[in-house]
Amino acid sequence: MELSAEESAEIESLKRQRFDTRRATVPALEEILYEPMPVLDHGFVRVVDYMGDDGAVVQAARVSYGKGTRSVRGDAGLINYLMRHRHTTPFEMCEIKYHVKLPIFVARQWIRHRTANVNEYSARYSILDREYYVPAPEHLGAQSKSNRQGRGEILDGDEAARVLALLKSDAERSHAHYEEMLNEDAAGETLDPTKRGLARELARINLTLSTYTQWYWKIDLHNLLHFLSLRTDAHAQYEIRAYADVMLETLRRWVPLTHEAFSEFAMGGVRVSAKGLAVIRRMIAGEKVSADTSGLSKREWLEIMEAVVPPDPDPVEATARKE
Amino acid sequence: MELSAEESAEIESLKRQRFDTRRATVPALEEILYEPMPVLDHGFVRVVDYMGDDGAVVQAARVSYGKGTRSVRGDAGLINYLMRHRHTTPFEMCEIKYHVKLPIFVARQWIRHRTANVNEYSARYSILDREYYVPAPEHLGAQSKSNRQGRGEILDGDEAARVLALLKSDAERSHAHYEEMLNEDAAGETLDPTKRGLARELARINLTLSTYTQWYWKIDLHNLLHFLSLRTDAHAQYEIRAYADVMLETLRRWVPLTHEAFSEFAMGGVRVSAKGLAVIRRMIAGEKVSADTSGLSKREWLEIMEAVVPPDPDPVEATARKE
Amino acid sequence: MELSAEESAEIESLKRQRFDTRRATVPALEEILYEPMPVLDHGFVRVVDYMGDDGAVVQAARVSYGKGTRSVRGDAGLINYLMRHRHTTPFEMCEIKYHVKLPIFVARQWIRHRTANVNEYSARYSILDREYYVPAPEHLGAQSKSNRQGRGEILDGDEAARVLALLKSDAERSHAHYEEMLNEDAAGETLDPTKRGLARELARINLTLSTYTQWYWKIDLHNLLHFLSLRTDAHAQYEIRAYADVMLETLRRWVPLTHEAFSEFAMGGVRVSAKGLAVIRRMIAGEKVSADTSGLSKREWLEIMEAVVPPDPDPVEATARKE
Amino acid sequence: MELSAEESAEIESLKRQRFDTRRATVPALEEILYEPMPVLDHGFVRVVDYMGDDGAVVQAARVSYGKGTRSVRGDAGLINYLMRHRHTTPFEMCEIKYHVKLPIFVARQWIRHRTANVNEYSARYSILDREYYVPAPEHLGAQSKSNRQGRGEILDGDEAARVLALLKSDAERSHAHYEEMLNEDAAGETLDPTKRGLARELARINLTLSTYTQWYWKIDLHNLLHFLSLRTDAHAQYEIRAYADVMLETLRRWVPLTHEAFSEFAMGGVRVSAKGLAVIRRMIAGEKVSADTSGLSKREWLEIMEAVVPPDPDPVEATARKE
Repeated sequence: MELSAEESAEIESLKRQRFDTRRATVPALEEILYEPMPVLDHGFVRVVDYMGDDGAVVQAARVSYGKGTRSVRGDAGLINYLMRHRHTTPFEMCEIKYHVKLPIFVARQWIRHRTANVNEYSARYSILDREYYVPAPEHLGAQSKSNRQGRGEILDGDEAARVLALLKSDAERSHAHYEEMLNEDAAGETLDPTKRGLARELARINLTLSTYTQWYWKIDLHNLLHFLSLRTDAHAQYEIRAYADVMLETLRRWVPLTHEAFSEFAMGGVRVSAKGLAVIRRMIAGEKVSADTSGLSKREWLEIMEAVVPPDPDPVEATARKE
Repeated sequence: MELSAEESAEIESLKRQRFDTRRATVPALEEILYEPMPVLDHGFVRVVDYMGDDGAVVQAARVSYGKGTRSVRGDAGLINYLMRHRHTTPFEMCEIKYHVKLPIFVARQWIRHRTANVNEYSARYSILDREYYVPAPEHLGAQSKSNRQGRGEILDGDEAARVLALLKSDAERSHAHYEEMLNEDAAGETLDPTKRGLARELARINLTLSTYTQWYWKIDLHNLLHFLSLRTDAHAQYEIRAYADVMLETLRRWVPLTHEAFSEFAMGGVRVSAKGLAVIRRMIAGEKVSADTSGLSKREWLEIMEAVVPPDPDPVEATARKE
Repeated sequence: MELSAEESAEIESLKRQRFDTRRATVPALEEILYEPMPVLDHGFVRVVDYMGDDGAVVQAARVSYGKGTRSVRGDAGLINYLMRHRHTTPFEMCEIKYHVKLPIFVARQWIRHRTANVNEYSARYSILDREYYVPAPEHLGAQSKSNRQGRGEILDGDEAARVLALLKSDAERSHAHYEEMLNEDAAGETLDPTKRGLARELARINLTLSTYTQWYWKIDLHNLLHFLSLRTDAHAQYEIRAYADVMLETLRRWVPLTHEAFSEFAMGGVRVSAKGLAVIRRMIAGEKVSADTSGLSKREWLEIMEAVVPPDPDPVEATARKE
Repeated sequence: MELSAEESAEIESLKRQRFDTRRATVPALEEILYEPMPVLDHGFVRVVDYMGDDGAVVQAARVSYGKGTRSVRGDAGLINYLMRHRHTTPFEMCEIKYHVKLPIFVARQWIRHRTANVNEYSARYSILDREYYVPAPEHLGAQSKSNRQGRGEILDGDEAARVLALLKSDAERSHAHYEEMLNEDAAGETLDPTKRGLARELARINLTLSTYTQWYWKIDLHNLLHFLSLRTDAHAQYEIRAYADVMLETLRRWVPLTHEAFSEFAMGGVRVSAKGLAVIRRMIAGEKVSADTSGLSKREWLEIMEAVVPPDPDPVEATARKE
């Protein structure tokens, strides 16, 4: 992640400002406000505004005149109760706004969450910088054998070298030709005075999906939790998970009680079906249950075993799980 | 539920119509199309249109040119997989439209589901009929002792009689005064030629929350499942549950494979937290775990025990559960 | 509007708090933060939190690292441009939260705006106060003759007196019986130790639609503008318009440049159809156009004449408009 | 637009199917159901399902038991009234589903409409065909001088030839390397048995934004109108406008009365601000108003003059407008 001198100065200027407010304020989040947190090779996430705190959740649940808060212990209990029973509306009373720089292919997954507000940098108006994502060698996974949409073992040797070379050279060439077609460089200088330059909205179609874009993204706490529960999941693509992991840390600073309840239920927990509960009951009663006698599909049997049986230290399994 | 002769004739006329279509069509749902299914004392639910079927879910998941379907077994497996892994977008590809007659206090809970399309009968334009909900004696619950928002034992004797009499007479009087203030009866006849009649938008504020209203309500399959999972839940108020139960039956006719997967996961299933899973692991390993040694809050301990321990035939517990 | 001593103390306590923040802060809105502004006979609106300011709209439109602002004049021009060309997403970057006390019939209209977050006081958990709306005599309109959903001339004499008496006595009686059925008064005291008390979720169905409820309501700036444009409109029911008018004033304090652009376009402006534009062109060319020669429907003709012809001082017309 | 033999057969099979239904059915839309309508060089739009018709809008507005329809004339009048007064909820009662093949850069603009349901072909699971968009020479616009986000004069000669060559060769090369990295061709054949093949979710990041993708896209009639009003607008990028224009034709077949009202108000019409109305009033009164004496910003003055002054046949202006 590199910022221009001008961008850094703008951020520093925001960080220096101090206002007097009567609004709910969270010092642990104020500390990192406006600060870009690096993600992937050129991306970042930075919190640029927020509204509400754990107390606002409690206040909304009680529709109170004041803070609604009675004690930290009482608040934690209520927030736990709301989370467990899917009383989601009090969590909608808090809001957070991020500025994110991310590769276009990540943006395409991210935008599928329709409950957020988004303003993306427009490549119809402006010119995109020559910045594109190239995976670190340790993330260069082969197509997974077991999971049709995931990645498995890491490529190495000549194959890895060739992949990295192609990803770099194609992104580089596409961007160079983008500037040539625009007939303008990043600084806005005309390249060839005898040419007119292709419209920006057309030239951009030559860029690769690895190119970085950026946006302002604003969401309420309930929908942020939903986003994080899907995108920190082991099945999410590594690159979007890298963003979700950083945002999870901003959640912990912002609303620690909600973060605690969320870690416990939505992330560490598991949804068990009626048939799955029947299997668990038989196992608790001491019966030996196998995939065949469980009545479950093979895939669901494995999912439940993974949840209720002590982790297996077998290295082969561990490799498989790393996918 | 009573329909006027005109309303019945309109419904019969719709039921007699037959068109030729190339669209996905579900005979089991066509059978009951337009037919009002009674709910509570004067309400109903009727399916008035639908779009898509189980095959449309599969088709969307595969983004195929044709039906997407390979075999009923294959479709069932895919629908199960989508449900278990929260891949919700394919379920959004089906849509259903209901015409519902319901008491206003039920409408107020129902409308909180914001993802539906609604057109309600307007009491600014039109006059509401003299129809209001009075609970059957077996639903006249006292305030629950254990659950701050539920009902417990059934009232009886003089207290029950008095409650029923009050609910009836207040609703009756409020409606009679509504007509008097409008200076118009339900048939549109002026009552007193020397009066001007209060505006409808004002007169209606005198009606009780038990008065019936009606609306067209349209929703996609994913959001219908969410509505049904919350409103068929034992914690939902009995009166809205009565509607959800009837709608669950329309779901079974419409999309039987989705209904099956939904019954298994979303309704019969349970979400277990990380700490809860740890307790289950200890129990499967043969350890005796108690509320005290579980590390769970008392309420969560009870919820998990209810899920994974065989039901207790003790009558006291059964009474408590009936609430 | 009456607040209990406890409620007033809670509000005062919030108003006294002061925090240090780096977030965008709006002193003119901070001044009235938490303060209840009276609406109707017992209602209020109070701003309880907000996020962003006019600068945040500009910042999002430019996807900038800093404030995005160049000059007040430049910002005003950009905000005007965004409003005129329906570039709505930058306005979604600001958020505001209100605590509102309002009659249930107003809440029923209000909730139709589905893009907000809401937490309403639950009458399943808690007991509603004996507070209900009675229109002031000057708002006691008869049913409009010209507008099927509006109100016209004001009732007077015996008819007005009778209407007011009925609205009061029915609301009063319904609430008294509500408490009797609950077997509990507002202070939580049991009324008759020999009774069990009807469940709250049932007793409330006896209340009239004029009864006050309250909620926390949070919305982004774009959707707030949409709400205000519909609800400050002359066709909106007077009672919800009373709330919208107060909220419009909070808009002016919060985002003055957006308020200015909104007043100009969304509120003072008019949407003219293709046929209507043709009529205006003919009139500008000096042609005398009448309803008959306009090619417009009678209703649309009147709407356009009202917009482009100098207001008519004729008292009959003025009366009609007062509706 | 080319379809494989298998795809064509699947489509033909759907077109041949005939079912008996009681649902509202629109013969003019059934005629083209499932049929791909070509857009751009390789794209298409096809209607794959629908629900409701003009009558369903009327039915919802009246909350009726039957069709709600009285006469075509009456329905047209009501639909016009609803459109003019922004009573949008009845239009939400109809739904349509499209299957669309489109370049990724168009998909990125399209997806910003958050009120639709979408299932996109997943390049994490599957391999994208070697199909990419290259503009026809007559759409190869230079960057507009007057409009920062549009295109102006058409490129020609060597510059045009060079741009087309670059767009083709970069897309071609990126796709060839995509297959090489996957170590698999479109038919699923392994290319080099000594390689493992990069994960699909990674290889796709090498593709250009001109590559075609496809999705199922479902939306209600109200939100479709909003989409069409923004995307058939002269300011929309040509490539997405090409899709919107084809969809507008499906609207005409589906709901002819709504299409008529929409053409009149939302598309042919103009929103005039309060200051703009004042200018129109002065002009109708015979006053000569100029940009300087209008009190409007220069840009708004031009917009209003364009709407209310007879079109100027001057060729320079015509060129400017073509942008």
